[in-house]
Amino acid sequence: MTERIRDYLERTAHDAPCLVMDLERVQDNYEAFRRAMPDTRVFYAIKANPAPEILSLLADLGSCFDAASLREIEMAIQAGATADRIAFSNTIKREREIAAAWRLGVRQYAFDCDAELEKIARAAPGSRVVCRLLCDGDGADWPLSKKFGCAPEMAARLMARAPGLGLIAHGLSFHVGSQQPNPMMWDGALKTCAKLFRDLGEQGIEMKMVNLGGGFPARYLRDVPNVGAYGQAINGSLKQHFGNRIPETIIEPGRGLVGDAGIIRSEILLISKKDDNDPMRWVFLDIGKFGGLAETIDESIRYPIKTSHEGDELAPVVLAGPTCDSVDVLYEKEPYLLPVTIEIGETVLIESTGAYTSTYASNGFNGFDPLRCVCV
Amino acid sequence: MTERIRDYLERTAHDAPCLVMDLERVQDNYEAFRRAMPDTRVFYAIKANPAPEILSLLADLGSCFDAASLREIEMAIQAGATADRIAFSNTIKREREIAAAWRLGVRQYAFDCDAELEKIARAAPGSRVVCRLLCDGDGADWPLSKKFGCAPEMAARLMARAPGLGLIAHGLSFHVGSQQPNPMMWDGALKTCAKLFRDLGEQGIEMKMVNLGGGFPARYLRDVPNVGAYGQAINGSLKQHFGNRIPETIIEPGRGLVGDAGIIRSEILLISKKDDNDPMRWVFLDIGKFGGLAETIDESIRYPIKTSHEGDELAPVVLAGPTCDSVDVLYEKEPYLLPVTIEIGETVLIESTGAYTSTYASNGFNGFDPLRCVCV
Repeated sequence: MTERIRDYLERTAHDAPCLVMDLERVQDNYEAFRRAMPDTRVFYAIKANPAPEILSLLADLGSCFDAASLREIEMAIQAGATADRIAFSNTIKREREIAAAWRLGVRQYAFDCDAELEKIARAAPGSRVVCRLLCDGDGADWPLSKKFGCAPEMAARLMARAPGLGLIAHGLSFHVGSQQPNPMMWDGALKTCAKLFRDLGEQGIEMKMVNLGGGFPARYLRDVPNVGAYGQAINGSLKQHFGNRIPETIIEPGRGLVGDAGIIRSEILLISKKDDNDPMRWVFLDIGKFGGLAETIDESIRYPIKTSHEGDELAPVVLAGPTCDSVDVLYEKEPYLLPVTIEIGETVLIESTGAYTSTYASNGFNGFDPLRCVCV
Repeated sequence: MTERIRDYLERTAHDAPCLVMDLERVQDNYEAFRRAMPDTRVFYAIKANPAPEILSLLADLGSCFDAASLREIEMAIQAGATADRIAFSNTIKREREIAAAWRLGVRQYAFDCDAELEKIARAAPGSRVVCRLLCDGDGADWPLSKKFGCAPEMAARLMARAPGLGLIAHGLSFHVGSQQPNPMMWDGALKTCAKLFRDLGEQGIEMKMVNLGGGFPARYLRDVPNVGAYGQAINGSLKQHFGNRIPETIIEPGRGLVGDAGIIRSEILLISKKDDNDPMRWVFLDIGKFGGLAETIDESIRYPIKTSHEGDELAPVVLAGPTCDSVDVLYEKEPYLLPVTIEIGETVLIESTGAYTSTYASNGFNGFDPLRCVCV
């Protein structure tokens, strides 16, 4: 909770769930990344929270942008970013959207297979391409699958094809898994990258850049290392594996920049029991999985929740959302502790909800409006 | 695939994923329910697909409506339904929305606990209340949790409270679980209902209605019993448990009315492999979990997918959506069989997607528009 958010909440009444973002906190987070990794350029992962105010702030601060779609590229440009500061980082793109991005001036594209490389060659001639490597993401709260990236040997073959297609074999990318608690998880992938840099160098292909991806955690209920610890660990790995030929690096934080800068204000709609003999309380909020808290799937992310009864006795509750959908339950397998004194109609504050909430919200399921996002 | 949908698809070009609904199929499904259960009133579960054309059609046909929120009530009225044909069936309601619904003329409200009953008494005096019972939903593809309903003994106590609060103890409801393949699953709950009718009758409280809920399946890849089989089984259970005092009944089909009336047209954005030595193809569509196919979570619902290569040799693929999100994978644990001849840029038709797609779609995640719904 920041003072600016507290101030906004005090000035406004609750009518529907609302995400309040503190732009100063976003700026602090951006500057912490810049300090911890001064030689690394920051590409904000727009998908984490595309609020125009956030994009404008980051554009003003000099940030670059990681876009998942043509629409996100347009949003970044609208916010003041020049096209040379935008990378089209989705490895799955419609060819006509690549062409449209190229016309807007975007010159950096991610890929992980032959067909996508060929699309980029046709639709964005002369561009820089970045090959995404498979990475197991072991240890992350929200592990990545094999969806993105290819095996290192295949990446070597693909990058060797790029110059012949009129493209610049710019570099490699990987992603260690969202909300990654272990700063050493970058080490194995960097070792692989260094080997590929050497192998391709021997073929006369001099790559220049490693995209370290995202994965930098926001603080939820569990403590996480600070940004400095990640910077140190990654720098150590770069020196160890690349020696005195350290490449350019970029990072793509999303959650790490905006996660802890947002708070959702929600109302308790109902407190009930399922059976007169069952002590477990069910607490229903006006926001749930379909309203923006989709990352509670499998109860993987546990948000800190504040009530106006801090210090009162706690007891477990099953926490659920307001829709007529039985999957719309936030915490049940591991019930959540809330004060015994909470009452229907009271406000709760769900902290560290700045990332992957407003865009995960459904498009009016059950007739509920998508989550509103306010920047202060 | 219906002729009307085929016709629409032939007349229009693909630019983004699109759900096409055949209103004649919706009408056929409605009439099948009416025939199979002539003594039962149909309350369409708006949340399954709130397209205004569907609501207008059903209003014209005489359907009633099951609303999850004030907004859905307003949509039903807008579509031509009178307030006496609308039930506010969400057991979790904001008190001021109950009051607003009451002012609009809605007089039937669901609840499952003391606090909600008291809200209804204050905000909707004189209304009919329907108590939701816990039901284990065993056997459904998408089983319900304990989120809705209370234990039968508690329901009896709550219903006995209703008259004293100025409310009409109208009846009971339960839900056997969405996409319920077993027509006999209503039997246990009906037996419980009959006992509660007798017990409350002995206290002088004469309930009138049983809400049989939804759960009627749409046909996906697996065959399911037809509506007639459900009607027969339910009628049999009603006679067995209620004897010659069969109550009024209503059903709340959503999926069963619109599921098989819709088809999503999607484009293959990419076909790739993760490793030159791995034969598994990854096929990426322009729609995925965040674009409307959220019910593929845990691969629980397997949609039939048609290509323009019917009859060609099939091979397994991992099927995934277009977002930069690793959870956006549709079928991976049990890969999907698609023709070996499919190519990037081709169209696929995802059948039986009329329910829980347009409203499950996210609000612009990754910069992709919410799923468009067209009614023909």
